[in-house]
Amino acid sequence: MLDRKALARDFHQMFAQSAAFGRLGKGVSRVACSREDGMARDWLVTWLNANGFRVIVDPIGNIFGLLELAGPNAPVILTGSHLDSQPNGGRFDGTYGVVAAAQAALAIAKAAAAGHLKPAANLCVVNWTNEEGARFQPSLLGSGVFTGAIKLEDALAVTDGDGVTVAQALAAIGYAGTGRPPQPSKYVELHIECGPELEATGRTIGVTERWWGAIKVQAVVKGEQAHTGPTAMRLRKDALYGASLLISGIRDLAERENSGGEERLYTSVGRLEVEPNSPNVVPGAAKLFVELRSCHPDVLARAEAGFRTLLEDVSRRTGLPVSIADISVRNAGRFDAPLAKLAWETAQKNDYPALAVATIAGHDAIPLAGICPSILVVTPSVGGICHHEDEFTKDADLEAGLFVLTDMLVALCSAPGA
Amino acid sequence: MLDRKALARDFHQMFAQSAAFGRLGKGVSRVACSREDGMARDWLVTWLNANGFRVIVDPIGNIFGLLELAGPNAPVILTGSHLDSQPNGGRFDGTYGVVAAAQAALAIAKAAAAGHLKPAANLCVVNWTNEEGARFQPSLLGSGVFTGAIKLEDALAVTDGDGVTVAQALAAIGYAGTGRPPQPSKYVELHIECGPELEATGRTIGVTERWWGAIKVQAVVKGEQAHTGPTAMRLRKDALYGASLLISGIRDLAERENSGGEERLYTSVGRLEVEPNSPNVVPGAAKLFVELRSCHPDVLARAEAGFRTLLEDVSRRTGLPVSIADISVRNAGRFDAPLAKLAWETAQKNDYPALAVATIAGHDAIPLAGICPSILVVTPSVGGICHHEDEFTKDADLEAGLFVLTDMLVALCSAPGA
Repeated sequence: MLDRKALARDFHQMFAQSAAFGRLGKGVSRVACSREDGMARDWLVTWLNANGFRVIVDPIGNIFGLLELAGPNAPVILTGSHLDSQPNGGRFDGTYGVVAAAQAALAIAKAAAAGHLKPAANLCVVNWTNEEGARFQPSLLGSGVFTGAIKLEDALAVTDGDGVTVAQALAAIGYAGTGRPPQPSKYVELHIECGPELEATGRTIGVTERWWGAIKVQAVVKGEQAHTGPTAMRLRKDALYGASLLISGIRDLAERENSGGEERLYTSVGRLEVEPNSPNVVPGAAKLFVELRSCHPDVLARAEAGFRTLLEDVSRRTGLPVSIADISVRNAGRFDAPLAKLAWETAQKNDYPALAVATIAGHDAIPLAGICPSILVVTPSVGGICHHEDEFTKDADLEAGLFVLTDMLVALCSAPGA
Repeated sequence: MLDRKALARDFHQMFAQSAAFGRLGKGVSRVACSREDGMARDWLVTWLNANGFRVIVDPIGNIFGLLELAGPNAPVILTGSHLDSQPNGGRFDGTYGVVAAAQAALAIAKAAAAGHLKPAANLCVVNWTNEEGARFQPSLLGSGVFTGAIKLEDALAVTDGDGVTVAQALAAIGYAGTGRPPQPSKYVELHIECGPELEATGRTIGVTERWWGAIKVQAVVKGEQAHTGPTAMRLRKDALYGASLLISGIRDLAERENSGGEERLYTSVGRLEVEPNSPNVVPGAAKLFVELRSCHPDVLARAEAGFRTLLEDVSRRTGLPVSIADISVRNAGRFDAPLAKLAWETAQKNDYPALAVATIAGHDAIPLAGICPSILVVTPSVGGICHHEDEFTKDADLEAGLFVLTDMLVALCSAPGA
């Protein structure tokens, strides 16, 4: 019915092209709404138009490519991921799911045109804006607006480290759209695992049943800018010193929680902004981007309480005001069980060994799960490496994910109400 | 002989103009070789040319304005400071000494032209490149090259945080000069105190007899970029976590040394570069800009040893490589005693209460002391504030410094061999 060899060939060709946009070392540097992201988007839109998709860009810059295989009133199966990357990131994270979705949808459209199947649903490919949250916080911005979790006005007003708003950045690359996207009846996302479990257990397909909860906080330490020469030590209000106590304290939260051996809590400070960040000036302010992650709600609640106590302790010890500028909470949750079953059975039919996994990282499938049945299928990451140019997934595994996705979409658009 | 009222008026007028270049809040943001620095330089050069100074720009961009009051072979008395500032810095630091030098020299030239005095030496005004070391490290770059402490090629190759070299930055603002500067027989620098002692003791003029030693280090912690989601805590190589232990450990070095009450050691980390500095990426590298300062050579030596032990401890504790990318040492020292005596006597003659002080901050007068008799005269900083937009010195104190500088220059160019 479907020519898998042609599908794999077309996928690899398109996927190889995608790595040209923002290429850096073995990976890509293509942060959201950058010039490089704009080029990748232009390339995707050109491809969608050339292959009969109807392109819709919504006001937060999400790109939809719709194939009306079953008429204007049929339900819509949505599939895709994101083209944006981390700075010095890998070339698989996100892009894999967009390219696989595009090729799977096109293959199904061709099969339908040849009379091999008769879709009862439409297919729509999507590229979400700013999944990574590297340039603009929060992450999952495009899917968050799409699902109503984030207000459009708030999202457009978010600024990067240079004060550029999302609205300005989208306009600069020509993706401040006005289109009205279709509402999905189901969402399927294919992604690399970004973790070591599939490789460690020798499995090819990961069926993501759950996601970890995450608390993301921007904490600010206020100091006072002064000369590092003549300013007496006892008079210094050094924001970076306060920040350093927070960073090590945040690490200690995880060490304490995980001291039994099982890692129930992950903590990190990935970004630190220091003002004015000059070698001979006592830092006047420091902003920390903190993450606390756990799949156990009670552990996450305890971590948040510990974090708040830490802020008070550091403030008391240093005499510096310490405050929370922003906090967002993603509760742990479960993806759609029937879709997980479909993924599992599809992997089995294809003889791919599967594993039920939980995702610790955020993915667009998580906000989507709030508005429709949603699932995340993942393929092995060599060495578990992610957010790094060395990120890698073998060709055979890329194909396995591609075939599972395609077969799932065939099943879903053949019987959309299932 | 000299019209002090006119001198003060002209000084205030010119000084008020200077604050327009890079104005930010109550202060200025005019880091070395920036567009704003270029505008301030153009303004100074225009003024020097208009007032009969011969302008010489040397290959590191230092600007000299020479008045040949006593013929081409007479000794040269050099005076000045720097126009560059810290980011969000004050408008007095450096600029005060340049403007006062320019106005003092012009007043003396006018008095000589009117036959009131017969100079036996020439006067030269100077603006040194990158005194602050905010954009380019090390600080004192222009005076360092001028005095031979830093090689010209090395200085030109220094890069800022964006990879722009000093050579490129100088060329961009038109100050990659080719002139050969005059060699000074003496150097006098007027500056704000940048510390609280004059105000606290009710004095108007500080005669700087000594400078503190300083060790400036760039230390690098090497980690490994990874996803803050799926990467197990035990596998993380978090460079920012290592950096946080260093920052608090560096503070502890001072607390230990100063536990007796007397502050013998100052330590700081003013700048921290984190790579890639994205909220959901484990930091792959961190570079710390560390300063250790003391006027006691033994204390400074002990601090350096303690710092090196700290690097080893943190490396052992975190498993991360920690290394020193750059280290520069400025030994404590003394300014010229006869020049200090002249400054003291000149203050007394003017009825300004004076105080012998030591400078903890670096100043261009320090490298200059390596090639000729050199002195630094300072005036009160309200609240000791420096490297901050609130930096302030009262008009009367600015004038006191201006008059002392002028009288010293009169004395020095009347009897240059004294």
